[in-house]
Amino acid sequence: MISRTEIQDAGRRIAMHIRRTPVIALEENAFGIDARIFLKLECLQHTGSFKPHGAFNCILTSTVPAAGIVAASGGNHGAAVAYAAQKLGHRAEIFVPVITPKNKVERLRQYGAAINITGNDYAESLAASRERAAQAGAISIHAYDDPGVLAGQGTLGMELEEQVRGLDAVLIAVGGGGLIGGVAAWYQERVRVIAVEPERAPTLHHSLAAGQLVEVETGGVAADSLGARRAGELMLPIAQKFVAQSLLVSDEQIVAAQRLLWQKLQLIAEPGGATALAALLSGVYKAHPGERVGVVLCGSNAELKTFPAYES
Amino acid sequence: MISRTEIQDAGRRIAMHIRRTPVIALEENAFGIDARIFLKLECLQHTGSFKPHGAFNCILTSTVPAAGIVAASGGNHGAAVAYAAQKLGHRAEIFVPVITPKNKVERLRQYGAAINITGNDYAESLAASRERAAQAGAISIHAYDDPGVLAGQGTLGMELEEQVRGLDAVLIAVGGGGLIGGVAAWYQERVRVIAVEPERAPTLHHSLAAGQLVEVETGGVAADSLGARRAGELMLPIAQKFVAQSLLVSDEQIVAAQRLLWQKLQLIAEPGGATALAALLSGVYKAHPGERVGVVLCGSNAELKTFPAYES
Repeated sequence: MISRTEIQDAGRRIAMHIRRTPVIALEENAFGIDARIFLKLECLQHTGSFKPHGAFNCILTSTVPAAGIVAASGGNHGAAVAYAAQKLGHRAEIFVPVITPKNKVERLRQYGAAINITGNDYAESLAASRERAAQAGAISIHAYDDPGVLAGQGTLGMELEEQVRGLDAVLIAVGGGGLIGGVAAWYQERVRVIAVEPERAPTLHHSLAAGQLVEVETGGVAADSLGARRAGELMLPIAQKFVAQSLLVSDEQIVAAQRLLWQKLQLIAEPGGATALAALLSGVYKAHPGERVGVVLCGSNAELKTFPAYES
Repeated sequence: MISRTEIQDAGRRIAMHIRRTPVIALEENAFGIDARIFLKLECLQHTGSFKPHGAFNCILTSTVPAAGIVAASGGNHGAAVAYAAQKLGHRAEIFVPVITPKNKVERLRQYGAAINITGNDYAESLAASRERAAQAGAISIHAYDDPGVLAGQGTLGMELEEQVRGLDAVLIAVGGGGLIGGVAAWYQERVRVIAVEPERAPTLHHSLAAGQLVEVETGGVAADSLGARRAGELMLPIAQKFVAQSLLVSDEQIVAAQRLLWQKLQLIAEPGGATALAALLSGVYKAHPGERVGVVLCGSNAELKTFPAYES
């Protein structure tokens, strides 16, 4: 299990490359909920998601060959690897599944990565990326099941603790579990870490229920960012020990959270980025009166033309 | 001229109603500019612009009759008055010109205001609103030329100074001049306050050149928020004394700033909200090497469907 010391080391290592994103403390009774809500605006991070934390930490602790770095991704991890590689002077080749939204592919191009659109989902892209890495002599960075990635994502918990003292709970969206694994390893028992997944991508939920990693079918509005079919091996024991609750939200609840974030806070979140907030807004997560709840808005890479700004 | 004490009083008065919006300190050399850039995210304020500062201060220092409050607006002031009136339990009737974007009218509806879409521009709406206020026995709140509004907007300068010490300059977009008037009255000579207007709405620029208020034709992409044809009488002497430079940017530079804010920071700014940043990004404002520059992103009420996310 990764340690708090490893997370602190990662924090020092990546500090100059990462944007310290702000926290907004919402007014009392915001959204009609009797809780104090703190939104961590990780949607404003470089590349539009939290993923650079793990990508930079991984690359900075690796010996990168001339062939560079290969990664598979629903889009956000790929963008982070491409961005970090560009900043650090390495070649990057990113494999994304065919479901990847155009705006995410556009972002990869901006960072100068070679792009392979292949595979029907993340798992298939991953297989293709591994083959390519072995063939080319490049290193491969997993989107979540890697100790360097976990420690990097854990720095987000450390940063949130510096910014907001005395949180009772923190809500975090889960795809493969890299972010929640890192953050739970940081907070341990000191804050209730709550996992939120789409009903249509209940990867960690089923694994926690089964007591072991199980593979699930995934789909739904957040599939491009939260659609991993299997949680990470490294994060499962952390989740079993430190994740206090595992909750599921519907696609409609996710879209409603996106809409409200835009209408009340003028923030753009992609479906995966609004999933944690959806649990709070929908009442799926029931806050105690006056509870101090942190919510990580973890990604903003939405397509604006089709953004659900108003009720249709 | 409004005093710093009046601004401090306004700050205490409105504190519980206003969101303390975050500041992002950009990384060194961001956007390739050798300056330290601090973005004040007032685009995340209630109603999507800075306008609630002035609206709350004005209403809280007025005796509001049962007939309520009337205001004319390109959209943002109206939304702020409607929002503040709703929160404080007053009726509101808002006059907007026909150029007002749909999304801004939608926002007014959300806050329960009566809406009159009338007049070809702000000046014509204003005339209609005054007639209506006199007839109904309502009070009227001017969008910028009112001491309560100026003092309220000035609290944004006070807040920025608390958040970022040692700014060398602060760039502020100008419509009728309420925001820059308040902020310049706060900072006085301690920070160089820079006015930025669209070339197609150079209201303050021409008045400063003429040494007196002059009326100008206005148009262009930011006309709905910065299209006042005449600057405020109350702000002109403040600007003459404390505004260090008055700059103009093209519509293309404004749109480029909107696009870059989205691509690099995942923030939505309306044209008027990106106008101050446009001066910095385009080189119209030339920062000294290492200068600490504050930029107020003052509004986010853009229509997403037509947002200039990518080069077309």
